[in-house]
Amino acid sequence: MPLARISAPDHLPLARLHALAEAVQAALVATCDVPAKDRFQLITRFPAGTMILDPSFPDVARSPEATIVEILFLAGRDAGKKRALYRAICDGAVAAGFRPDDVMVALVENRPIDWSLGRGLAFDGHAATAPAGA
Amino acid sequence: MPLARISAPDHLPLARLHALAEAVQAALVATCDVPAKDRFQLITRFPAGTMILDPSFPDVARSPEATIVEILFLAGRDAGKKRALYRAICDGAVAAGFRPDDVMVALVENRPIDWSLGRGLAFDGHAATAPAGA
Amino acid sequence: MPLARISAPDHLPLARLHALAEAVQAALVATCDVPAKDRFQLITRFPAGTMILDPSFPDVARSPEATIVEILFLAGRDAGKKRALYRAICDGAVAAGFRPDDVMVALVENRPIDWSLGRGLAFDGHAATAPAGA
Repeated sequence: MPLARISAPDHLPLARLHALAEAVQAALVATCDVPAKDRFQLITRFPAGTMILDPSFPDVARSPEATIVEILFLAGRDAGKKRALYRAICDGAVAAGFRPDDVMVALVENRPIDWSLGRGLAFDGHAATAPAGA
Repeated sequence: MPLARISAPDHLPLARLHALAEAVQAALVATCDVPAKDRFQLITRFPAGTMILDPSFPDVARSPEATIVEILFLAGRDAGKKRALYRAICDGAVAAGFRPDDVMVALVENRPIDWSLGRGLAFDGHAATAPAGA
Repeated sequence: MPLARISAPDHLPLARLHALAEAVQAALVATCDVPAKDRFQLITRFPAGTMILDPSFPDVARSPEATIVEILFLAGRDAGKKRALYRAICDGAVAAGFRPDDVMVALVENRPIDWSLGRGLAFDGHAATAPAGA
Protein backbone atom coordinates (compact mmCIF):
# COMPACT_ATOMS: atom_id res chain seq x y z
CA MET A 1 0.00 0.00 0.00
CA PRO A 2 2.83 2.24 -0.31
CA LEU A 3 3.05 2.87 -4.04
CA ALA A 4 6.57 3.95 -4.94
CA ARG A 5 7.51 5.59 -8.21
CA ILE A 6 11.18 5.61 -9.07
CA SER A 7 12.08 8.11 -11.80
CA ALA A 8 15.61 7.65 -13.10
CA PRO A 9 17.68 8.60 -16.14
CA ASP A 10 17.60 5.85 -18.75
CA HIS A 11 21.37 5.44 -18.86
CA LEU A 12 21.28 3.79 -15.42
CA PRO A 13 21.26 -0.01 -15.69
CA LEU A 14 18.04 -1.71 -14.67
CA ALA A 15 19.95 -3.83 -12.15
CA ARG A 16 20.90 -0.66 -10.30
CA LEU A 17 17.30 0.49 -10.26
CA HIS A 18 16.19 -2.88 -8.98
CA ALA A 19 18.70 -2.58 -6.17
CA LEU A 20 17.33 0.87 -5.37
CA ALA A 21 13.78 -0.50 -5.39
CA GLU A 22 14.85 -3.19 -2.94
CA ALA A 23 16.42 -0.52 -0.75
CA VAL A 24 13.27 1.61 -0.81
CA GLN A 25 11.12 -1.33 0.27
CA ALA A 26 13.59 -2.39 2.96
CA ALA A 27 13.60 1.18 4.28
CA LEU A 28 9.80 1.29 4.44
CA VAL A 29 9.76 -2.01 6.31
CA ALA A 30 12.51 -0.98 8.72
CA THR A 31 11.28 2.50 9.57
CA CYS A 32 7.56 2.81 8.76
CA ASP A 33 5.99 -0.52 9.80
CA VAL A 34 5.24 -1.57 6.23
CA PRO A 35 4.82 -5.35 5.83
CA ALA A 36 7.61 -6.83 3.71
CA LYS A 37 5.17 -8.21 1.15
CA ASP A 38 3.29 -4.91 0.88
CA ARG A 39 5.38 -3.89 -2.10
CA PHE A 40 4.17 -1.94 -5.13
CA GLN A 41 6.77 -0.12 -7.20
CA LEU A 42 6.91 1.45 -10.62
CA ILE A 43 10.20 2.28 -12.32
CA THR A 44 10.26 4.86 -15.11
CA ARG A 45 13.42 5.53 -17.09
CA PHE A 46 13.67 9.00 -18.56
CA PRO A 47 15.48 9.74 -21.83
CA ALA A 48 18.09 12.49 -21.92
CA GLY A 49 16.58 15.93 -21.61
CA THR A 50 13.39 14.84 -19.85
CA MET A 51 14.54 15.07 -16.22
CA ILE A 52 15.24 18.69 -15.36
CA LEU A 53 16.74 18.73 -11.87
CA ASP A 54 18.62 21.65 -10.44
CA PRO A 55 22.22 20.54 -9.97
CA SER A 56 22.65 21.90 -6.45
CA PHE A 57 19.46 23.06 -4.70
CA PRO A 58 19.50 23.49 -1.75
CA ASP A 59 23.13 22.58 -0.96
CA VAL A 60 23.90 19.28 -2.68
CA ALA A 61 25.83 18.32 -5.81
CA ARG A 62 23.69 16.24 -8.15
CA SER A 63 25.21 14.17 -10.93
CA PRO A 64 23.52 12.96 -14.13
CA GLU A 65 22.48 9.90 -12.09
CA ALA A 66 20.12 11.86 -9.83
CA THR A 67 16.97 9.88 -9.19
CA ILE A 68 13.60 10.69 -7.61
CA VAL A 69 11.64 8.35 -5.35
CA GLU A 70 8.00 9.32 -4.85
CA ILE A 71 6.04 7.36 -2.26
CA LEU A 72 2.28 7.44 -1.83
CA PHE A 73 1.40 5.92 1.51
CA LEU A 74 -0.90 6.17 4.48
CA ALA A 75 -0.94 9.32 6.57
CA GLY A 76 0.17 8.86 10.15
CA ARG A 77 3.93 8.56 10.12
CA ASP A 78 5.45 11.26 12.31
CA ALA A 79 8.49 13.37 11.51
CA GLY A 80 10.81 10.94 13.28
CA LYS A 81 9.72 8.04 11.11
CA LYS A 82 10.01 10.10 7.96
CA ARG A 83 13.52 11.22 8.89
CA ALA A 84 14.47 7.60 9.55
CA LEU A 85 12.95 6.62 6.21
CA TYR A 86 15.03 9.18 4.30
CA ARG A 87 18.19 8.04 6.06
CA ALA A 88 17.44 4.37 5.35
CA ILE A 89 16.58 4.97 1.69
CA CYS A 90 19.76 6.96 1.20
CA ASP A 91 21.93 4.37 2.94
CA GLY A 92 20.39 1.61 0.84
CA ALA A 93 20.78 3.63 -2.33
CA VAL A 94 24.43 4.19 -1.58
CA ALA A 95 24.87 0.45 -1.11
CA ALA A 96 23.21 0.07 -4.52
CA GLY A 97 25.77 2.37 -6.12
CA PHE A 98 24.16 5.80 -5.90
CA ARG A 99 25.82 8.94 -4.62
CA PRO A 100 23.97 10.28 -1.53
CA ASP A 101 23.38 13.64 -3.20
CA ASP A 102 21.58 11.91 -6.08
CA VAL A 103 18.72 10.50 -4.01
CA MET A 104 15.62 12.68 -3.69
CA VAL A 105 12.42 11.54 -1.96
CA ALA A 106 8.92 13.04 -1.96
CA LEU A 107 6.00 11.71 0.09
CA VAL A 108 2.27 12.00 -0.56
CA GLU A 109 -0.28 10.68 1.89
CA ASN A 110 -3.77 9.27 1.73
CA ARG A 111 -6.08 7.15 3.92
CA PRO A 112 -6.84 3.41 4.17
CA ILE A 113 -10.17 3.88 2.37
CA ASP A 114 -8.20 5.27 -0.59
CA TRP A 115 -6.79 1.86 -1.55
CA SER A 116 -8.19 -1.15 -3.29
CA LEU A 117 -5.59 -3.89 -3.62
CA GLY A 118 -7.71 -6.11 -5.84
CA ARG A 119 -11.03 -7.83 -6.35
CA GLY A 120 -12.96 -4.58 -6.15
CA LEU A 121 -12.59 -4.45 -2.38
CA ALA A 122 -11.54 -1.55 -0.26
CA PHE A 123 -8.44 -2.38 1.73
CA ASP A 124 -10.39 -3.22 4.88
CA GLY A 125 -12.44 -5.76 2.94
CA HIS A 126 -9.57 -8.20 2.65
CA ALA A 127 -9.50 -11.07 5.10
CA ALA A 128 -5.83 -10.67 5.80
CA THR A 129 -5.64 -6.92 6.32
CA ALA A 130 -4.06 -5.82 9.53
CA PRO A 131 -5.64 -2.98 11.54
CA ALA A 132 -2.51 -0.84 11.20
CA GLY A 133 0.22 -1.29 8.60
CA ALA A 134 1.06 -0.14 5.10
CA MET B 1 -11.16 16.77 -13.13
CA PRO B 2 -10.44 13.38 -12.04
CA LEU B 3 -7.04 12.67 -13.53
CA ALA B 4 -6.55 8.93 -13.87
CA ARG B 5 -3.20 7.26 -14.45
CA ILE B 6 -3.30 3.69 -15.67
CA SER B 7 0.01 1.86 -15.24
CA ALA B 8 0.08 -1.46 -17.06
CA PRO B 9 2.62 -3.98 -18.34
CA ASP B 10 3.52 -3.30 -21.95
CA HIS B 11 2.54 -6.76 -23.15
CA LEU B 12 -1.13 -5.89 -22.68
CA PRO B 13 -2.73 -4.75 -25.94
CA LEU B 14 -3.68 -1.09 -26.11
CA ALA B 15 -7.27 -2.07 -26.91
CA ARG B 16 -7.53 -3.78 -23.55
CA LEU B 17 -6.17 -0.69 -21.81
CA HIS B 18 -8.64 1.49 -23.67
CA ALA B 19 -11.44 -0.76 -22.46
CA LEU B 20 -10.12 -0.40 -18.92
CA ALA B 21 -9.96 3.36 -19.30
CA GLU B 22 -13.60 3.36 -20.44
CA ALA B 23 -14.49 1.26 -17.42
CA VAL B 24 -12.70 3.61 -15.03
CA GLN B 25 -14.53 6.61 -16.41
CA ALA B 26 -17.89 4.81 -16.38
CA ALA B 27 -17.28 3.84 -12.77
CA LEU B 28 -16.49 7.44 -11.78
CA VAL B 29 -19.66 8.62 -13.50
CA ALA B 30 -21.83 5.91 -11.95
CA THR B 31 -20.57 6.11 -8.39
CA CYS B 32 -18.90 9.47 -7.78
CA ASP B 33 -21.02 12.05 -9.63
CA VAL B 34 -18.35 12.78 -12.21
CA PRO B 35 -19.75 14.28 -15.44
CA ALA B 36 -19.31 11.91 -18.38
CA LYS B 37 -17.26 14.41 -20.34
CA ASP B 38 -15.01 15.19 -17.38
CA ARG B 39 -12.47 12.65 -18.56
CA PHE B 40 -8.70 12.96 -18.31
CA GLN B 41 -6.66 9.77 -18.45
CA LEU B 42 -3.04 8.87 -19.01
CA ILE B 43 -1.95 5.35 -19.92
CA THR B 44 1.64 4.28 -19.28
CA ARG B 45 2.92 0.92 -20.45
CA PHE B 46 5.78 -0.49 -18.43
CA PRO B 47 8.50 -2.70 -19.94
CA ALA B 48 9.30 -6.02 -18.29
CA GLY B 49 11.04 -5.59 -14.97
CA THR B 50 9.78 -2.08 -14.26
CA MET B 51 6.56 -2.94 -12.39
CA ILE B 52 7.42 -4.62 -9.12
CA LEU B 53 4.16 -5.76 -7.56
CA ASP B 54 3.92 -8.29 -4.80
CA PRO B 55 2.16 -11.36 -6.23
CA SER B 56 -0.24 -11.88 -3.34
CA PHE B 57 -0.44 -9.05 -0.79
CA PRO B 58 -2.73 -8.96 1.12
CA ASP B 59 -4.68 -12.06 0.01
CA VAL B 60 -4.99 -11.96 -3.77
CA ALA B 61 -3.26 -13.78 -6.63
CA ARG B 62 -1.79 -11.32 -9.12
CA SER B 63 -0.80 -12.36 -12.62
CA PRO B 64 1.71 -10.66 -14.93
CA GLU B 65 -1.25 -8.59 -16.15
CA ALA B 66 -1.69 -6.75 -12.84
CA THR B 67 -2.45 -3.09 -13.44
CA ILE B 68 -2.63 -0.01 -11.24
CA VAL B 69 -5.22 2.74 -11.54
CA GLU B 70 -4.34 5.95 -9.70
CA ILE B 71 -7.03 8.61 -9.53
CA LEU B 72 -6.48 12.20 -8.44
CA PHE B 73 -9.86 13.78 -7.72
CA LEU B 74 -11.72 16.15 -5.47
CA ALA B 75 -11.94 15.41 -1.76
CA GLY B 76 -15.43 14.79 -0.47
CA ARG B 77 -16.42 11.30 -1.52
CA ASP B 78 -17.31 9.24 1.51
CA ALA B 79 -16.31 5.64 2.15
CA GLY B 80 -19.51 4.32 0.60
CA LYS B 81 -18.83 6.05 -2.69
CA LYS B 82 -15.24 4.89 -2.72
CA ARG B 83 -16.29 1.30 -2.07
CA ALA B 84 -18.81 1.54 -4.90
CA LEU B 85 -16.11 3.00 -7.13
CA TYR B 86 -13.75 0.10 -6.48
CA ARG B 87 -16.51 -2.41 -7.16
CA ALA B 88 -17.51 -0.67 -10.39
CA ILE B 89 -13.93 -0.33 -11.66
CA CYS B 90 -13.28 -4.00 -10.96
CA ASP B 91 -16.50 -5.14 -12.63
CA GLY B 92 -15.72 -3.02 -15.68
CA ALA B 93 -12.15 -4.26 -15.78
CA VAL B 94 -13.34 -7.85 -15.70
CA ALA B 95 -15.65 -7.10 -18.61
CA ALA B 96 -12.57 -5.69 -20.38
CA GLY B 97 -10.70 -8.94 -19.89
CA PHE B 98 -8.84 -8.43 -16.61
CA ARG B 99 -8.79 -10.85 -13.69
CA PRO B 100 -10.32 -9.23 -10.58
CA ASP B 101 -7.15 -9.81 -8.57
CA ASP B 102 -5.16 -7.84 -11.13
CA VAL B 103 -6.92 -4.51 -10.58
CA MET B 104 -5.44 -2.20 -7.96
CA VAL B 105 -6.72 1.32 -7.30
CA ALA B 106 -5.19 4.20 -5.32
CA LEU B 107 -6.90 7.55 -4.71
CA VAL B 108 -5.35 10.95 -4.02
CA GLU B 109 -7.49 13.98 -3.26
CA ASN B 110 -7.24 17.70 -3.76
CA ARG B 111 -9.60 20.72 -3.86
CA PRO B 112 -11.44 22.59 -6.62
CA ILE B 113 -8.93 25.45 -6.48
CA ASP B 114 -6.21 22.93 -7.33
CA TRP B 115 -7.37 22.53 -10.93
CA SER B 116 -7.04 24.61 -14.04
CA LEU B 117 -8.67 22.95 -17.02
CA GLY B 118 -7.41 25.44 -19.56
CA ARG B 119 -7.04 29.06 -20.53
CA GLY B 120 -5.21 29.92 -17.33
CA LEU B 121 -8.42 29.86 -15.33
CA ALA B 122 -9.04 28.16 -12.05
CA PHE B 123 -11.83 25.62 -12.34
CA ASP B 124 -14.46 28.01 -10.95
CA GLY B 125 -13.58 30.56 -13.60
CA HIS B 126 -15.16 28.53 -16.38
CA ALA B 127 -18.64 29.54 -17.44
CA ALA B 128 -19.87 25.98 -17.56
CA THR B 129 -18.55 24.71 -14.24
CA ALA B 130 -21.11 23.13 -11.98
CA PRO B 131 -21.10 23.95 -8.24
CA ALA B 132 -20.52 20.30 -7.32
CA GLY B 133 -19.10 17.66 -9.64
CA ALA B 134 -15.76 16.22 -10.73
CA MET C 1 10.60 21.16 -3.88
CA PRO C 2 7.90 21.63 -6.22
CA LEU C 3 8.03 18.49 -8.34
CA ALA C 4 6.40 19.13 -11.70
CA ARG C 5 5.31 16.40 -14.08
CA ILE C 6 4.65 17.47 -17.65
CA SER C 7 2.64 14.91 -19.64
CA ALA C 8 2.56 15.70 -23.35
CA PRO C 9 1.83 13.92 -26.62
CA ASP C 10 5.01 12.56 -28.17
CA HIS C 11 4.56 14.42 -31.44
CA LEU C 12 5.43 17.70 -29.69
CA PRO C 13 9.09 18.61 -30.13
CA LEU C 14 11.24 18.39 -27.02
CA ALA C 15 12.26 22.03 -27.47
CA ARG C 16 8.64 23.07 -27.02
CA LEU C 17 8.36 21.00 -23.88
CA HIS C 18 11.55 22.53 -22.54
CA ALA C 19 10.08 25.96 -23.14
CA LEU C 20 6.95 24.91 -21.27
CA ALA C 21 9.06 23.59 -18.41
CA GLU C 22 10.85 26.94 -18.25
CA ALA C 23 7.49 28.68 -18.18
CA VAL C 24 6.20 26.48 -15.37
CA GLN C 25 9.25 27.20 -13.23
CA ALA C 26 9.12 30.93 -13.98
CA ALA C 27 5.45 30.94 -12.99
CA LEU C 28 6.18 29.19 -9.69
CA VAL C 29 8.93 31.70 -8.95
CA ALA C 30 6.81 34.71 -9.89
CA THR C 31 3.59 33.75 -8.11
CA CYS C 32 4.34 31.19 -5.39
CA ASP C 33 7.63 32.28 -3.80
CA VAL C 34 9.57 29.31 -5.13
CA PRO C 35 13.33 29.92 -5.32
CA ALA C 36 14.56 29.98 -8.92
CA LYS C 37 16.97 27.11 -8.34
CA ASP C 38 14.32 24.98 -6.60
CA ARG C 39 13.51 23.23 -9.86
CA PHE C 40 12.58 19.58 -10.27
CA GLN C 41 10.71 18.60 -13.41
CA LEU C 42 9.91 15.38 -15.22
CA ILE C 43 8.73 15.33 -18.82
CA THR C 44 6.85 12.30 -20.13
CA ARG C 45 5.91 11.99 -23.78
CA PHE C 46 2.87 9.86 -24.47
CA PRO C 47 2.46 7.84 -27.68
CA ALA C 48 -0.72 8.20 -29.70
CA GLY C 49 -3.71 6.69 -27.96
CA THR C 50 -2.33 6.90 -24.44
CA MET C 51 -3.59 10.38 -23.48
CA ILE C 52 -7.37 10.34 -23.30
CA LEU C 53 -8.49 13.91 -22.73
CA ASP C 54 -11.99 15.13 -23.30
CA PRO C 55 -11.85 17.60 -26.19
CA SER C 56 -14.00 20.30 -24.57
CA PHE C 57 -14.74 19.83 -20.84
CA PRO C 58 -15.79 22.14 -19.29
CA ASP C 59 -15.91 24.83 -22.00
CA VAL C 60 -12.60 24.78 -23.85
CA ALA C 61 -11.46 23.45 -27.22
CA ARG C 62 -8.50 21.10 -26.83
CA SER C 63 -6.28 20.18 -29.76
CA PRO C 64 -4.08 17.08 -30.12
CA GLU C 65 -1.38 19.18 -28.43
CA ALA C 66 -3.17 19.31 -25.07
CA THR C 67 -0.71 18.89 -22.23
CA ILE C 68 -1.05 18.31 -18.50
CA VAL C 69 1.13 19.92 -15.83
CA GLU C 70 0.94 18.28 -12.41
CA ILE C 71 2.70 20.03 -9.56
CA LEU C 72 3.39 18.54 -6.16
CA PHE C 73 4.32 21.32 -3.77
CA LEU C 74 3.99 22.57 -0.23
CA ALA C 75 0.55 23.31 1.18
CA GLY C 76 -0.05 26.92 2.10
CA ARG C 77 -0.61 28.83 -1.11
CA ASP C 78 -3.98 30.54 -1.02
CA ALA C 79 -6.49 30.72 -3.84
CA GLY C 80 -5.09 34.03 -5.06
CA LYS C 81 -1.62 32.60 -5.53
CA LYS C 82 -2.98 29.53 -7.27
CA ARG C 83 -5.04 31.67 -9.64
CA ALA C 84 -1.96 33.75 -10.40
CA LEU C 85 0.02 30.57 -10.96
CA TYR C 86 -2.48 29.26 -13.51
CA ARG C 87 -2.48 32.57 -15.33
CA ALA C 88 1.31 32.72 -15.40
CA ILE C 89 1.73 29.11 -16.56
CA CYS C 90 -0.77 29.65 -19.34
CA ASP C 91 0.81 32.91 -20.47
CA GLY C 92 4.23 31.29 -20.51
CA ALA C 93 2.90 28.26 -22.35
CA VAL C 94 1.38 30.48 -24.99
CA ALA C 95 4.73 32.20 -25.41
CA ALA C 96 6.20 28.71 -25.87
CA GLY C 97 3.78 27.95 -28.66
CA PHE C 98 0.83 26.30 -26.91
CA ARG C 99 -2.80 27.21 -27.36
CA PRO C 100 -4.31 28.46 -24.07
CA ASP C 101 -7.01 25.78 -24.16
CA ASP C 102 -4.34 23.07 -24.31
CA VAL C 103 -2.80 23.81 -20.92
CA MET C 104 -4.23 21.92 -17.95
CA VAL C 105 -2.80 22.13 -14.44
CA ALA C 106 -3.42 19.98 -11.36
CA LEU C 107 -1.92 20.64 -7.92
CA VAL C 108 -1.22 18.21 -5.09
CA GLU C 109 0.10 19.39 -1.74
CA ASN C 110 2.28 18.00 1.01
CA ARG C 111 4.36 19.32 3.93
CA PRO C 112 8.03 20.27 4.40
CA ILE C 113 8.71 17.04 6.29
CA ASP C 114 7.59 15.14 3.18
CA TRP C 115 10.70 16.07 1.20
CA SER C 116 14.27 14.86 1.20
CA LEU C 117 16.34 16.66 -1.39
CA GLY C 118 19.40 14.50 -0.97
CA ARG C 119 21.91 12.98 1.40
CA GLY C 120 19.20 11.24 3.43
CA LEU C 121 18.22 14.48 5.11
CA ALA C 122 14.75 15.86 5.58
CA PHE C 123 14.42 19.26 3.96
CA ASP C 124 15.00 21.17 7.20
CA GLY C 125 18.28 19.34 7.70
CA HIS C 126 19.99 21.22 4.90
CA ALA C 127 22.18 24.13 5.91
CA ALA C 128 20.82 26.36 3.19
CA THR C 129 17.10 25.76 3.61
CA ALA C 130 15.00 28.83 4.06
CA PRO C 131 12.23 28.87 6.70
CA ALA C 132 9.55 29.52 4.08
CA GLY C 133 9.87 28.81 0.36
CA ALA C 134 9.34 25.97 -2.10
